[in-house]
Amino acid sequence: MSKEKEKIDRTEISELGEFGLIEHLTGTFGLKNDSTVRGVGDDAAVIDNGSKMTVVSTDLLLEGVHFDLVYTPLKHLGYKAVMVNLSDIYAMNAHPKQITVSIGVSNRLSVEALTEFYSGVKLACELYGVDLVGGDTTTSLKGFTISITAIGEAEKKSLCYRQNAKEGDIICVSGDLGGAYLGLQILEREKEVFLASPDAQPNLQGQDYIIGRFLKPEARKDIIEMFAECNIKVNAMIDISDGLSSELFHISQQSELGVLIHEEKLPISDEASQMALSFGLDPMVCALNGGEDYELLFTMSPEEFKKLPPTADVRDIGEITSEEEGRKIQTRTGKVHELLAQGWTHLQGQE
Amino acid sequence: MSKEKEKIDRTEISELGEFGLIEHLTGTFGLKNDSTVRGVGDDAAVIDNGSKMTVVSTDLLLEGVHFDLVYTPLKHLGYKAVMVNLSDIYAMNAHPKQITVSIGVSNRLSVEALTEFYSGVKLACELYGVDLVGGDTTTSLKGFTISITAIGEAEKKSLCYRQNAKEGDIICVSGDLGGAYLGLQILEREKEVFLASPDAQPNLQGQDYIIGRFLKPEARKDIIEMFAECNIKVNAMIDISDGLSSELFHISQQSELGVLIHEEKLPISDEASQMALSFGLDPMVCALNGGEDYELLFTMSPEEFKKLPPTADVRDIGEITSEEEGRKIQTRTGKVHELLAQGWTHLQGQE
Repeated sequence: MSKEKEKIDRTEISELGEFGLIEHLTGTFGLKNDSTVRGVGDDAAVIDNGSKMTVVSTDLLLEGVHFDLVYTPLKHLGYKAVMVNLSDIYAMNAHPKQITVSIGVSNRLSVEALTEFYSGVKLACELYGVDLVGGDTTTSLKGFTISITAIGEAEKKSLCYRQNAKEGDIICVSGDLGGAYLGLQILEREKEVFLASPDAQPNLQGQDYIIGRFLKPEARKDIIEMFAECNIKVNAMIDISDGLSSELFHISQQSELGVLIHEEKLPISDEASQMALSFGLDPMVCALNGGEDYELLFTMSPEEFKKLPPTADVRDIGEITSEEEGRKIQTRTGKVHELLAQGWTHLQGQE
Repeated sequence: MSKEKEKIDRTEISELGEFGLIEHLTGTFGLKNDSTVRGVGDDAAVIDNGSKMTVVSTDLLLEGVHFDLVYTPLKHLGYKAVMVNLSDIYAMNAHPKQITVSIGVSNRLSVEALTEFYSGVKLACELYGVDLVGGDTTTSLKGFTISITAIGEAEKKSLCYRQNAKEGDIICVSGDLGGAYLGLQILEREKEVFLASPDAQPNLQGQDYIIGRFLKPEARKDIIEMFAECNIKVNAMIDISDGLSSELFHISQQSELGVLIHEEKLPISDEASQMALSFGLDPMVCALNGGEDYELLFTMSPEEFKKLPPTADVRDIGEITSEEEGRKIQTRTGKVHELLAQGWTHLQGQE
């Protein structure tokens, strides 16, 4: 093949984006087995085992792309790597039961460092009642690679997909948003300071909450348990890993409906708001587009919404509209804008 | 912590080896869920879903450690990455039904290159009746990372572990051994030639079989199907990924029994034998320690062995002995030697 021809046939991955690439690569596969209920395209795959449904989710985390060991303690990293996967299982309204953990490690990491990492994995397993059942351990030439698969179970009727939102549903979110993104900004800032003058003390005072949101997120097991206790039926659900806007797009696209979000209803912690302003950022933009909060985004009918206990850590942020109404956000001043899908894209690789 | 103290507390991963490291990191975890039948320590984890058993296996493949894109066509790589995982599921006497495929890619790879990779994944899925149900797609700073999880199903009574070999069992192996290792040696040799003089034509004549053994292995679905058709009960089984010796050690250790292998019974193809000799290697050593053949190693009683059809692609290579007799190999001259566990170790990382 001539050099010229080769050039013509080369499409950069960045031209398609993450979701375009996945569709391009896997769109033609099709499903053959009766037991395969759901394949690519939700938080997790769903397998029918006759009595119970098995739910499977997997994530690949690469050093330098998803985490920076300069400011990420290995125990926290182990804990977070598990949370990221459990969060996907909860987002199906299922219960995680098992995980496999595969790691690729270079000789830069000692056995003691890996022991720290696994102490975080173990803590997560203990607190969330999950068993470590397998994995793969291999060398890497450079960098630390983590691949975790979580396996959960659910009754068929309990499973919750992205595609079943109904017009008139109330859109809800657990916890608060944007904190993890701002926690990361602080850690990145202090890393710069440290690199410029290694003797400087990091300035993390009063930022425990938002730094914790980034370094040690919790999957929202409690929300799923609350749904079961209060007998609440959720129509569509997704976890917020890439940012609220991006996840709203998934629910809207897959349910073929519109969304209307009210800016003043977006839950943001005081710490996150103040930190956003001190970075010269709009707190709302951080709440909409900051990723890694691992909160749950879900929709339910107004009747179901009334069943939420007053103490529930859940906010109503908008409603599901018709497909024609599109995806909108209403600002505090009453103006309605197009909602833009941004979210974190990890697909701008280099070599 | 002082530099000296830090040094004392640093244990190199290579000091423990792969299996020592896994035991060190995961040995204290324990299992909490009733549905978890088998965790770390076999070809796959086993989950009890009431009616059927779910079997889960996962592998992490890193460029430069597990594959070299200089001589590995991407379609072959996609096919082989799936085979490696299906082989683990068959080694449990289970049937693979679903896979998840996660990739980390740098901008060195184009969309067309990834399409090639997925065409290999798709071919494997089609030929083996497996559904692609999920995964994760992310950027990497450098190198191509592949993580595949295979999910299979089995009846509880069919499942076959490493630990249930019985004294007096016949040790069997499917296919032939050492070919993949020698195929790799040829490809490595031709890579050296190519790097020294890029215009040289590769000398691969007559080596199709063994190069194919390395580049495009097949998981032994047919062997599992034959067991079912002939109603043959296998006591212990493992797939040969790290080399026959290493896998014999696993069965022997976990079954707490000895093994006696007869050198003259080891199946080696003529192509592999000739190539070994031309490299100055002992073909038997290649058969014992060469990895990546993805054949099945299993044990069964002499009564079950008689049920094997005469056309079965299976060889009797030895027998299970008492624990006291240890792990032995009898040479053609009748001498008995200690069997050494070698196998491929991917745990000598660098950075």
